[in-house]
Amino acid sequence: MSNFNIVKDGGITTPCGFLASGVTAGLKKSGNRDVALIVSKSSANCAGAFTTSLFPAAPVVLAKKNLENNTQFRAVIINSGVANACTGEQGYKDAKKMAVLTASALNITPEEVFVSSTGRIGTHLPMEIIENGINMAVKALSTDGGADAATAIMTTDTVPKEVCISLELDGKTVHIGGITKGAGMINPLMSVPHATMLAYITTDAAVDQKYLSILLQEEVAGSFNRITVDGDMSTNDTVILMANGKAKNTPITSESKDAQKFREALRYVMQYLAKAIVHDAEGATKFVTVKIKNAKLAKDAELCADAIANSLLCKTAWFGGDPNWGRVLAAAGYARASFNPKKVDLFYDDKPVVINGEDAGTPECELEEVLKKDNFTLTLNLNDGNFAYEMWTNDISYEYVKINAEYHT
Amino acid sequence: MSNFNIVKDGGITTPCGFLASGVTAGLKKSGNRDVALIVSKSSANCAGAFTTSLFPAAPVVLAKKNLENNTQFRAVIINSGVANACTGEQGYKDAKKMAVLTASALNITPEEVFVSSTGRIGTHLPMEIIENGINMAVKALSTDGGADAATAIMTTDTVPKEVCISLELDGKTVHIGGITKGAGMINPLMSVPHATMLAYITTDAAVDQKYLSILLQEEVAGSFNRITVDGDMSTNDTVILMANGKAKNTPITSESKDAQKFREALRYVMQYLAKAIVHDAEGATKFVTVKIKNAKLAKDAELCADAIANSLLCKTAWFGGDPNWGRVLAAAGYARASFNPKKVDLFYDDKPVVINGEDAGTPECELEEVLKKDNFTLTLNLNDGNFAYEMWTNDISYEYVKINAEYHT
Repeated sequence: MSNFNIVKDGGITTPCGFLASGVTAGLKKSGNRDVALIVSKSSANCAGAFTTSLFPAAPVVLAKKNLENNTQFRAVIINSGVANACTGEQGYKDAKKMAVLTASALNITPEEVFVSSTGRIGTHLPMEIIENGINMAVKALSTDGGADAATAIMTTDTVPKEVCISLELDGKTVHIGGITKGAGMINPLMSVPHATMLAYITTDAAVDQKYLSILLQEEVAGSFNRITVDGDMSTNDTVILMANGKAKNTPITSESKDAQKFREALRYVMQYLAKAIVHDAEGATKFVTVKIKNAKLAKDAELCADAIANSLLCKTAWFGGDPNWGRVLAAAGYARASFNPKKVDLFYDDKPVVINGEDAGTPECELEEVLKKDNFTLTLNLNDGNFAYEMWTNDISYEYVKINAEYHT
Repeated sequence: MSNFNIVKDGGITTPCGFLASGVTAGLKKSGNRDVALIVSKSSANCAGAFTTSLFPAAPVVLAKKNLENNTQFRAVIINSGVANACTGEQGYKDAKKMAVLTASALNITPEEVFVSSTGRIGTHLPMEIIENGINMAVKALSTDGGADAATAIMTTDTVPKEVCISLELDGKTVHIGGITKGAGMINPLMSVPHATMLAYITTDAAVDQKYLSILLQEEVAGSFNRITVDGDMSTNDTVILMANGKAKNTPITSESKDAQKFREALRYVMQYLAKAIVHDAEGATKFVTVKIKNAKLAKDAELCADAIANSLLCKTAWFGGDPNWGRVLAAAGYARASFNPKKVDLFYDDKPVVINGEDAGTPECELEEVLKKDNFTLTLNLNDGNFAYEMWTNDISYEYVKINAEYHT
């Protein structure tokens, strides 16, 4: 039983004091929405997590710099279609220009604006189109614009991804909403708090700035860092969390009696969004949970989960509905983890597949039943300690190859 | 100009004193050859390199143990179709039985026999079929059986892979022949001398045992460890090098004046076989050389090469003939290597793609010309030091997914 409720059809504008919009500026050949804007009516405490790539996109560099000097923000401007990554000095100037244009139209300062971009790497932003898009987005701002924003940040995504929950904190109703995008170039860098896609989370809860920042880092490690689509980390990964305090609850700190309650609600939102990316993974037909249990060290559990979740042979076997457990053990075997191969058990959902490193004798047809499902769990029990780790991933299909062999835009 | 000649249609039985055969025992549904035997008429100095998987197959465990006690061997018995991996105590007994049966038929000791298996993981060997196969293989031994052996070790391979070269060492003609198999579950564990497939190399050169072992380890790092098909390391990877001294040259040691000459010839054979695996990679349409230049540390070059060569987004872009260099830089960016992203240059063959981390301005159509080729080189110059590393890899196609989603045998 959880301490929060899901708000049906809710999103980032459900929390009080948030506006959003999503418009078509003309960056995508498809003519789909491509500029999104999220605005808090008053200053919001903010925290961010970003890609650890050595080639961070210009807007990521700008956002990290702004967060070093300032934790109070009012807006996020996002474009899809062009990533503004590997674009040098001009790219950085363009990202700053997006902040200036947005701030000017909203009558705030550029330092209060986050900028994000997603799309093709290495291409410069067409700034006239961007400028026009920003002006349109400002005009379109509304308290029910969250869904449009969720649509405008999409690239190879097939569905917009949004969620909202509500909970009570000392008698006040508090909301947490979120949107995310991402379907490919998705892989966590394990154990390092960072994000692997774009996600924006709004809340009207009052949260102490320092605690907000700690919460985000810790919960990114338990959500967005746990997913992988194709093993490729992006140059643009960004998670932004904005808390504007409009719910007027007593500000939450690490000492608050409600701290855990709020954390669990935030975790639900972040895990929901992270899993939504995997559900919409490029060409995927299956959602696979990879659980590692009873590892000697946390690292061993993480290495095994990462190897299996990223194994191309496992992912294609899942696509084919093939219970081929040798590929799962082979992946654990090269994960550079430490464990005793003779003590390993493997389960597909509740069916034993391997016991003590050997065939458990479950009939192949029973295992095939599990593999046929569009959502199943693979549990590897190392029987070697107390550490566990879980990741969420997907199969690799013909469609994945098609999308990525033909995605020239 | 090289110091050796390629022997047309040569293979592992071209060197003096070697016999081989490849027969159909009935392990494969296809009815193709599935048991191979390689025999030296006299004791041969031997060296081996094996998978570093935590789940080494039973024959790998046996071969490593035999090599600890003994360096003089007479034969290698190999079956395809069943990997004899993750098969517990029974699997180990079966591997030993294969050595005993082979030794008995050849009138040698089981300790003089290497055993190898390749195929499905987790299945026990049908020992009656194996026993029959071994007897057939012994009867079929001949001095021109190398090609049959090359065929019998194949699994998803589409062509047998063999090579032979000859060279002069103090007036004596010496041969080095080799066969290999492998088309999927191929990935090096970098910087650790080990193998990633099956390869058997025979030579009639006389080579000091200690030097033979050093040579093999070092040259595996420069050949089989440099290839990746799908990033999945196998449980059965094995390279065996047999030197029977029949050419009667002065035994080569690390001090010999001809040591470097022999090493270069051996390197050619091993690189030829390693590249042959990539040329025959499952579903591949392109052979891609990934070169990293001027890295600060050797590790930085290796990490970048490994990330690019294994990036699913790069591999699918290559399949699509898409010059999308953002994916190459993104892969280098998450490789956990150290370099300055603003100093990086990238070339497709001789075409500049990226200069100082930004678009070099070469017209897209010129880059597409390179990507259309079935063999091209991608060079990433980090401009940060003096270390280089090179890997050989392939694209990932619809056919790769098909083979691995449907490979149940």
